[in-house]
Amino acid sequence: MKKHNFSAGPCILPQKVLKQASDAILNFNDDSLSLIEISHRSKPFVEVMDKAVSLVKELLGLPKGYSVLFLQGGASMQFLMASYNLMKIDGKAAYLDTGTWSSKALKEAKLFGEVNVVASSKEKGYNYIPKGYTVPSDVDYLHITSNNTIYGTQLKGFPKTDRLLVCDMSSDIFSRQVDIAKFDLIYAGAQKNMGPAGATLVIVKDTILGKTGRQIPSMLDYQIHIAKESMFNTPPVFAVYVSMLTLQWLKDLGGIAAIEKRNEEKAALLYAEIDNNPAFVGFAAKEDRSLMNITFTLADQKNQEKFDKLWNDAGINGLKGHRSVGGYRASMYNALPLESVQILVNVMKQIN
Amino acid sequence: MKKHNFSAGPCILPQKVLKQASDAILNFNDDSLSLIEISHRSKPFVEVMDKAVSLVKELLGLPKGYSVLFLQGGASMQFLMASYNLMKIDGKAAYLDTGTWSSKALKEAKLFGEVNVVASSKEKGYNYIPKGYTVPSDVDYLHITSNNTIYGTQLKGFPKTDRLLVCDMSSDIFSRQVDIAKFDLIYAGAQKNMGPAGATLVIVKDTILGKTGRQIPSMLDYQIHIAKESMFNTPPVFAVYVSMLTLQWLKDLGGIAAIEKRNEEKAALLYAEIDNNPAFVGFAAKEDRSLMNITFTLADQKNQEKFDKLWNDAGINGLKGHRSVGGYRASMYNALPLESVQILVNVMKQIN
Repeated sequence: MKKHNFSAGPCILPQKVLKQASDAILNFNDDSLSLIEISHRSKPFVEVMDKAVSLVKELLGLPKGYSVLFLQGGASMQFLMASYNLMKIDGKAAYLDTGTWSSKALKEAKLFGEVNVVASSKEKGYNYIPKGYTVPSDVDYLHITSNNTIYGTQLKGFPKTDRLLVCDMSSDIFSRQVDIAKFDLIYAGAQKNMGPAGATLVIVKDTILGKTGRQIPSMLDYQIHIAKESMFNTPPVFAVYVSMLTLQWLKDLGGIAAIEKRNEEKAALLYAEIDNNPAFVGFAAKEDRSLMNITFTLADQKNQEKFDKLWNDAGINGLKGHRSVGGYRASMYNALPLESVQILVNVMKQIN
Repeated sequence: MKKHNFSAGPCILPQKVLKQASDAILNFNDDSLSLIEISHRSKPFVEVMDKAVSLVKELLGLPKGYSVLFLQGGASMQFLMASYNLMKIDGKAAYLDTGTWSSKALKEAKLFGEVNVVASSKEKGYNYIPKGYTVPSDVDYLHITSNNTIYGTQLKGFPKTDRLLVCDMSSDIFSRQVDIAKFDLIYAGAQKNMGPAGATLVIVKDTILGKTGRQIPSMLDYQIHIAKESMFNTPPVFAVYVSMLTLQWLKDLGGIAAIEKRNEEKAALLYAEIDNNPAFVGFAAKEDRSLMNITFTLADQKNQEKFDKLWNDAGINGLKGHRSVGGYRASMYNALPLESVQILVNVMKQIN
């Protein structure tokens, strides 16, 4: 049975990419060896890494002066590395608290210095993005989370600040056009719009590094990974390869401008049903609604059993909301076809 | 053409495992979804993680009181985590320096406290394992590297000490029987005898943790990963899955006792040729010879072109020695069949 995969992450990847990845496990580069049993320093794999980096640069229109890294440990490791590399000894950092992931990020930063939470939507269950806050002039950086998977909120604009701007873009990078030059450090776990779990993308402006006075352990030091071109130690070969394939798929599709249009169409279709069907209630504030994760609940819990049976029978997967919000969450990452959203909307129309 | 894969790591994996992994990329668990597009908290993947952990325990005969973790970052991240979790504030640690990886490990430890190098074979190019050294009574732990991939040396016995014993077993874990109860912390990158690059195995005695007085960042804290059963954040799903398959393959084969016997046979075959054929010279001291990585050079460089052509023509891959030693290195991990060693020996017999 065909599945419609609304998983929050790890999440749907393009079918073409899955086929290529499956083939490479058996015979990579037509060399009678598997992708996962060759040296990461062999020419074929170095080419994969180089291509992945150049596709990131091309797709994002990266200006000069930024380095692109493929590391391990997910965004959770970046919570720590961002502070380690950017917060001065006895320094301060500002955090915009828009959900669980922001909170986790600022918790790690507190090990390195003083954390100023410039605004938080915690008191309303993180159902909106705070605006109109002030960033103190003495912080080393401002940290934001561009999209909040659990709550279905997304920053539609980015704060203007003269401090360094650090952004966790794990769940919406490559999904919409963004002016990268506004940012000093961007990081993203691969397992949404880029590839499988196990690789982490880091984009960092070179000139901001090496200024904290801290001694940084090698594996946590962006400068070391830059100098070694993400090969300071053995990289997560498979995850980098599949990321490269997914970025190539995106390029072939027309790049971020093209996928953004598709993502807007998909989101519009589902939000319209939520707004027009009295059986459903949207969770996030309308002006902050995410294009990636759409959160909603049933107006009347008596419909739960019927709705759950309907979407399960339709082959829909991963629609259960995060335990901290409840209800439903439709994650509609780049690789999810419009057809899957239509199937979900058709199911919702049967509840009213 | 059939390849004989002597790569040092990432390295050969069992053909059966590669086939299973390739299939799971297209359709995992017969559920019409890929392994790499489902939630790591879904029942099918939680079962994979649980099975991987229980296979580690079973194969190693792990006593009670140890936790098994699958993390990211490779042994290089463990260099740092071992010190962070075990070295007290103003503490000391002892390191046995048997090669590049030991040196890298102790370099990271220096960020956390005083490092005492109890012995080093550096002056002889790391071609032997130092013995007869004394471990100071005031160190928090002694760190050793059980097998030195670059030089082809291996600890045949383990030091007796009343301090905590920490071992980097990246390149020989699951290859020979070891009394695990002697160790307090063992870590190993997956990409030798366990699976593809991207997962790191950590085996730690629970009672040794939480005693340093340090505030440890979450991602570097063994206790947090233990409490979350390796799911504090998204694990490297694919690498954990393939590790589980490889461990199952090893169990089906008869476990570590059976593979150790095979590894001894393979190594004996190649060392005999090195010792009996005057055209070749072994690099490592005989009593410290590794069963995993066999290093040798040509007695006469005039044979280089001929030898290189012969082994390339025979479908042999990955025989080039590490740049710091030169010559040749035959890495003969668990999945390498005896047949491949025989092919190499046959090629060597043509040089004399």
